[in-house]
Parts: sequence; C-alpha cells; structure tokens
Amino acid sequence: MSGEQELGITESKEHNTGEWYAELIQKANVADYAPMGGFIVTRPRGYALWEGIQDALDSRFKATGVQNAYFPMFVPESYLEREKDIVEGFDPEVAWVTHGGYEELEERLAVRPTSESIIAPYMAQWTRSHRDLPLRLNQWCSVCRWEATETKPFFRTKEFLWQEGHTAHEDREDAWAETMLRLEQYEEVYEDVLALPPLVGRKPPHDKFPGADTTTTVETLMPDGKSVQGATSHYLGTSFGEAFDITYTDEDEEEQVAHTTSWGLSWRALGAMLMAHGDDQGLVLPPTLAPEQVVVVPIWGGDDREEVVEYAEGVAEDLEDAGLRVELDDRDERNPGFKFNEWELKGVPLRVEIGSNEVEDDTITVVHRPDGEGFELDREGAAAAVEDHLDEVHEKLYDAAEENLEENVREADNVADILGTIGRYGGYVKAAWCGDQACEEVIKEEIAAEIVMVPLDEDHDPIDDECAVCEDPAGSTAYYAKTY
Amino acid sequence: MSGEQELGITESKEHNTGEWYAELIQKANVADYAPMGGFIVTRPRGYALWEGIQDALDSRFKATGVQNAYFPMFVPESYLEREKDIVEGFDPEVAWVTHGGYEELEERLAVRPTSESIIAPYMAQWTRSHRDLPLRLNQWCSVCRWEATETKPFFRTKEFLWQEGHTAHEDREDAWAETMLRLEQYEEVYEDVLALPPLVGRKPPHDKFPGADTTTTVETLMPDGKSVQGATSHYLGTSFGEAFDITYTDEDEEEQVAHTTSWGLSWRALGAMLMAHGDDQGLVLPPTLAPEQVVVVPIWGGDDREEVVEYAEGVAEDLEDAGLRVELDDRDERNPGFKFNEWELKGVPLRVEIGSNEVEDDTITVVHRPDGEGFELDREGAAAAVEDHLDEVHEKLYDAAEENLEENVREADNVADILGTIGRYGGYVKAAWCGDQACEEVIKEEIAAEIVMVPLDEDHDPIDDECAVCEDPAGSTAYYAKTY
Repeated sequence: MSGEQELGITESKEHNTGEWYAELIQKANVADYAPMGGFIVTRPRGYALWEGIQDALDSRFKATGVQNAYFPMFVPESYLEREKDIVEGFDPEVAWVTHGGYEELEERLAVRPTSESIIAPYMAQWTRSHRDLPLRLNQWCSVCRWEATETKPFFRTKEFLWQEGHTAHEDREDAWAETMLRLEQYEEVYEDVLALPPLVGRKPPHDKFPGADTTTTVETLMPDGKSVQGATSHYLGTSFGEAFDITYTDEDEEEQVAHTTSWGLSWRALGAMLMAHGDDQGLVLPPTLAPEQVVVVPIWGGDDREEVVEYAEGVAEDLEDAGLRVELDDRDERNPGFKFNEWELKGVPLRVEIGSNEVEDDTITVVHRPDGEGFELDREGAAAAVEDHLDEVHEKLYDAAEENLEENVREADNVADILGTIGRYGGYVKAAWCGDQACEEVIKEEIAAEIVMVPLDEDHDPIDDECAVCEDPAGSTAYYAKTY
Repeated sequence: MSGEQELGITESKEHNTGEWYAELIQKANVADYAPMGGFIVTRPRGYALWEGIQDALDSRFKATGVQNAYFPMFVPESYLEREKDIVEGFDPEVAWVTHGGYEELEERLAVRPTSESIIAPYMAQWTRSHRDLPLRLNQWCSVCRWEATETKPFFRTKEFLWQEGHTAHEDREDAWAETMLRLEQYEEVYEDVLALPPLVGRKPPHDKFPGADTTTTVETLMPDGKSVQGATSHYLGTSFGEAFDITYTDEDEEEQVAHTTSWGLSWRALGAMLMAHGDDQGLVLPPTLAPEQVVVVPIWGGDDREEVVEYAEGVAEDLEDAGLRVELDDRDERNPGFKFNEWELKGVPLRVEIGSNEVEDDTITVVHRPDGEGFELDREGAAAAVEDHLDEVHEKLYDAAEENLEENVREADNVADILGTIGRYGGYVKAAWCGDQACEEVIKEEIAAEIVMVPLDEDHDPIDDECAVCEDPAGSTAYYAKTY
C-alpha cells in the first residue's frame, strides 16, 4: 500500500476530470476495479465513507417511522412480469440466474434490479386494515443493472449499493407527504453531510421510474458541468397497489387500494461527494464523514523531538476527549512534507502542526485542507476552536459548491441559446417548456443534454411563457443538462 | 397484521420443535417464506434483531483492527477454480448467472457462496511489505448456497446474511492468534448478547472448510438435542497465499507467503437464539437484543384511567431517561389480557404493570418474560432496579441454556453406547477418538450423528485412551451429535 501512496495524482481535475477522478479513487485507496467489467471493489477507506452516509440516512429514517427489513436478492421472472412497466423498464438490464448447482432452474431468477415486485406482494399480505398503514419498509442492499456503459466507480457500476424504501399509505395525500419527506431527508443529507447543495424537483413524465405517478429527484452539479441524479423519491400512485393487490379496509369497512411510494439513494452520492470536493492533491472530505477529522503532525528539528511529540500527544488527547476523530502521525521514518502530502491525499479536513514555536508559544497551528489556509490558535481551549474550524471547512466546501452551482444555472429562450450555452459552459440551462418530450428530443439529439429537473412548485403555480423549443404555451421551467 | 397476532402459537416446543419454530417465526412477525423455495423474507422484527447482532460484532471487530470493505457479489468461474479445494467444495451449491440483459455472458458468474476467491487477489495486490500486515478485512453481505434441503428460516436458506472476515499475516503464529481472537469474540457474543453458552473447539480434519488448515467452531445445543454450528473461524495456512500469490517482503527483503484466516457468523446465530429461548407463548428475547426491553401496561378499572395512565407515563419516562428501550401500551381498544399475550408473543423481556394498587402504594410490578416471576418494586429508584431485573432475565436465559447443555453432554466408550445415548437423549456424546473418519462413518451411517467438535487443548495435550469405535490409540475426545 505504501508504494501506491508515494505516487501523487498526476491528472488535472480541471482539464481532465474523468481521468483525474479515476486516478483519485485508486490512489486514495477508495476503490479498485473488479476483474469483471462494470464491477468495483470498495476498499476500507471508501466503505467507511459509505458507512457514514448510511448512518446519517438510517438514523433519519428510523426517527421518522421507517423499519428496516430484508427481502431476497432474487426475483422470479413471473413476479417481475406482474408489473409490466417494471419489466419493460428493467428487462434489458437484468442479470439472470439460470442454474443452481448442476441443475437448470425451472424459472429464471432476476438478480434484483430494484425490489418493488418482490416487496409489494408482502406489503399486500401485511396490509389488511387502515390500522396497518402507513407501512414503511427500507432495506440496505446491493442491486444489479447490466448496463453496457463504461465503468465509473460509484457513478456507473453494474452492481451498486443503495437503500430502497417502500411504503404504503391510505391515500394520495399521505403518500405524497411521504414522497416529499424522503426527498427532504435526501436534500438534508446532501447539504449537511456531503456539503453539496442540490437542485430539487421532479423528472419530466417520460423519465419517471417505470410505473410511477411522479418521480422526484435531487440533482447535483459536477465539476465538469454534468448533473448527477443523486437520489430519487417516487410517488407510485395506485399502480403497484393494483398490480399486487395492496388493499385495505377503511374506517367504513370499504376495500381501498393503497397508494405506495419508493425512494432510494445509492453510493452514487459518495461518488458525487468525492468528485465535487476532491482536488489535484487528492481527496477532500467533509468533516462529518471523514474517518479522521484532524491529523496532528509533530515537526521536530534536532533534539526537540521528545518535547514536541509529548506536546502533540497532549493536543491529540484533548481533541479526542472532545469527541473528535484524531490521528497522531509521529512516525520517525517519514518527514513532515511526506506526511502532509499523504494526509492531503487522504482528504483529512484539518491538519494540526506542532513545532518548537508552537510548544514555546503554547499554541497550535491549524491548516484547512480545502484551501491551505492556516491559523495559529491558543493551546488553551484548542478543542472548541478546532470544532469551529471543522465547521468552517464544511462551510468552505459547501460555499464553493454553491457558488459553482449558482454560476452554472443559466437561462435560455430558444434552441440555439440552449445548445450554445450548454455547449460552451455545461451546467444547467433553464428554459420554458411545454411538457412535450419531442422538444427535449431536439436538444438531446444535438448535444446529448436532457431535462434533468422541473421545479415542483410550478405544478401548482405554473409559469406563463412560451416553450423555448416549439413556442407553444409553456407552464414549466425545464432544467437541461448533460448527465452521468 | 393484527389478524395474525390474535392467533397464538398452537404447536408445542417440547413435542414438535420443528413445527413450533416455523409457527413462532411467522406468528411473531420475524420472517416469512419467499415465493422461491429456500428463501425467506426477514420482517422488521427479525431484521432489528439481526441489526443488534451486527452492532455487537461490528463494534468488537473495529475495536480490534478490522476494516469493513465491500467486494462484488459475483465471482468469475475462473477465479473460483483458482482455489481447487474451494471449487470442489462449493460447486454443487453455486447459483450461476449466465445472462446479462438479453446476452449470454462469455464466462459464468457465481453468486458468491463465500468470497475467499474474489478477495484473495486483492489482498495479494495490497500486500507488498511486512509493513502492510496484518491486513484485516470484513464484509457484511448476503451469500448463496444452493442446498436442496428443506427451508428452515435462519438455519437452512439458500440465501443468507452473514459477515465474512478475511485477514493476512506474516506467520503462522500471528494468523493463529487472529483465528483464536475471532473465535473468542464469537463466543463472547453468544454468551453476552444471545445468552447462549456454546461449546468451542475444532472440526475434525475431514469436515474443515475447503482449503483450510484448521476450522474452529462455536457449537450451540438446540432444544431438540441437535447441535448448531454457530460460527466458524478458519486458519487457512498458506494455501490461499500460495494459490493467489499473497506474498510480502520481510524485514530481510526476502519474499514470504502470507498466512491467512477467514471467519464468519451468519444469521443462523439469530435462529439459534430464537429457538433456544422461545416458548409456547412466543419469542423470548435477551434484553441486549430486544427492540423493546420493557413494556409498561397500565391497568385501569372504572374511573381511575386518567390517574393510572399518567402514573404509567411517568414510569415509562423515567425508564427511557435511564437509556432503556420502553414501550407504553395505553391502547383503549385492548384489554390487559390481550396486551399481555401480545407482548409475550413479541418476547419483551420485562413487563411493568401499573394498576390502582401500584399508584396507591407508589410502586410498580415487574414481571419476567421467561418464567412469569413477578416483583413489586418501589417507584422511587425503579429505573435502576429495572436494569437489575433485565440483567436477571439475561441470567435466567443463560442459566437455563447452560443447564440444558450440561445435562446433555454424556460420555460413552463403545459404539453401542454412543448410538444408544444419542438415540435416547440427543445432545452431545463425548467419546475417545483415533482421528480416523472411518470411525465417525460407523456412527453416521447408523444414526446420522457426526463429530461436531474436538477440544482445542487436546491438540497440545492429547488424551491417552482408546478409540470408542475401533479401539486404536486415541489422542482426542470427539463430541458426537446430530446437527442442523
């Protein structure tokens, strides 16, 4: 491992984002490529970050009535076919198990591409009366979608880790509130944990989840100007309720069809965070997720080693006592420059430097990972000050991402303008839209950009404008962007 | 759901253990059967218990140098073949993915039956120098073994959840210490979390994990006299190191082959806990794992409802403030008898009853789930007393299991005695053993019992006896038992 780390990152994030990202992931020990194309190995450093995201989401889910469960990894073909929209949507991407041991199976089993069709029949069994609702299930698992595109760790992989929530409700109002609650929780985790401000809205009707009434999305902007669909929350209406007989008797003893939702966030959120914040020196991790929030590096000259290290140990201890995740790097065989580079590659948000000056002045020097800004702090009360600096690092990351987002949402009111603006700058282009897929096609064919998002408030409060493509009346604003 | 719960358990644990267990699992909402034979659906109540086991193990692993990671769910057939012992061991049980979307794959992919052969090549990549060792990886995942036996939730399922640890070390001593450390952690979790005293030892050579030098095991006794292999920890020697080139340069710059281990605990541990402690009224959960540790049931007569419920709310609040997991059942539409039955079915370790007597006397009544023993406690300081009672419930469960174990380890010194004792009592029969598989075969053919365990200390300190079967010199004691 040490051999790899000695080699810094050689690609430029600005000029060669794709190659830089691939190098970052490998050099920082986040992930490796698997022997089968489309699969990756998530190394401990990458997995610890995913565990941090899991904790943040799982605690929010549990605090709002969600129960975790586990359903089989395989779905019989006939079950997948019960929801015809689902099977049409996923059939080209399904990995099929055809043999168990030496024998061919009577019915092929799909490795779950998503679990609606295996979970819905149980929701039907467990839902009898209105008293059983809402029913809120979630599972953390891996799913498989056999897409033929190039592997991009965490963004495009045939197998990926995610959570999928599945809920049933008495009526539209309740199911819609659920859809919105999960969307808000995703937005909150993006902002408060990943330090990424997302755009939030709904997908155009032709880009909904198969079978859904409405698909809502959290979109984040990547440094190369492409948008990432960061999480989705679907209001499924009664389509799954009808297909799988999820019915209940209401207070008047009448049978009703339940309204259902599903919502998921995958390890793509991890990829988005890594790509947005990383730089040419390596990872830049938000303090909420960083396995080590602070690295303390004692810097000694000749014979002051003992004194400096002892002082550094005291500082590290104080920080740990304050509940921070701290690493003390007192290795003899590495010089400070090597250590700085290594911890920068690893993305540790704050470096604390302790030299003879700090010992003499009873101070510590704190350096922010994102921009290298340094501060000399009093040793007394350092723990509280370091916590403030961690918050500042989070703000710096968030603010930079927000500034990037704000600079890259532009308006356009005709086809040439949409194409020219995306072609030149990337990012999002807002344009009035009539709701017709054909108008998106005009853009998509020319420049491979699509409508990634439509603001939700316009569904109740439509704009009064002309479609930037066909000039028909337009009630919505479409956000066009290139995507991952 | 309420409909199912109204029906209590009808089978007898003592007379019909298998049917009782199947009924228990379903009626207590722990799991359901999946549409495909051999698969189950783990319902929220079951999954919460598994999460409790995960937390207990994961924190122990992380405190002792283990890092979590995630490897692909599929293993290319050629990788599986690199370790010929592995492929011979698992080939009859592998589920094969042959198609991705509409296309046949060039190489079949095994749904992982275990992950040595996909993890070992990465351990080889990441291990260069002795400074990279020990390397300790773990993953929580599902695995698939296509066994043709009858489905028994958590005991026998084609897909099961588990953790698998994989480590590499400089030498035999270090790898053996790792094998023992994990075995001890399993034993500790069985004792302190599951309230089950296990037998700990090694498997006979002919029943080792494919490719292993030594397989150690934690065995627990079930109420029907069968033994469950509750977790295993394998010292793999250098066989995987050699097959997958896991080598390192030592301090003298010489290339050495690493010694590896693997170790796993599956949701079978959950099944063992449920089967051992449950009774004809339902689940009996150890306090460490119970989603609700205490249920507070206010019992009102005529017009004292308000007073009693208010008092009960205060008690519940105090218990929650003490960090306990508490449920207050103040439902109007159910009578106390129904509530008692329901919470007994759910296995809640302690019931707190609050009636007008308790309010008047400033007391609470506490009832132990395992045996119904009741205690009247002062309201003042009740939280601390309730914590003590939770410890007592754990002890009652542990002591009962220990007593059952002690009563069911018997000795025998000839074939007729081994067969007769197991046939009559079940449980374990200790008998001197020469080490030859043929002697086990004699027993196995007659009565389907096998050697589940050999004490580890006898490897260094052999006994001096005659094999109970062939009368050749015997250095070890074999524990014969029927198994799941």
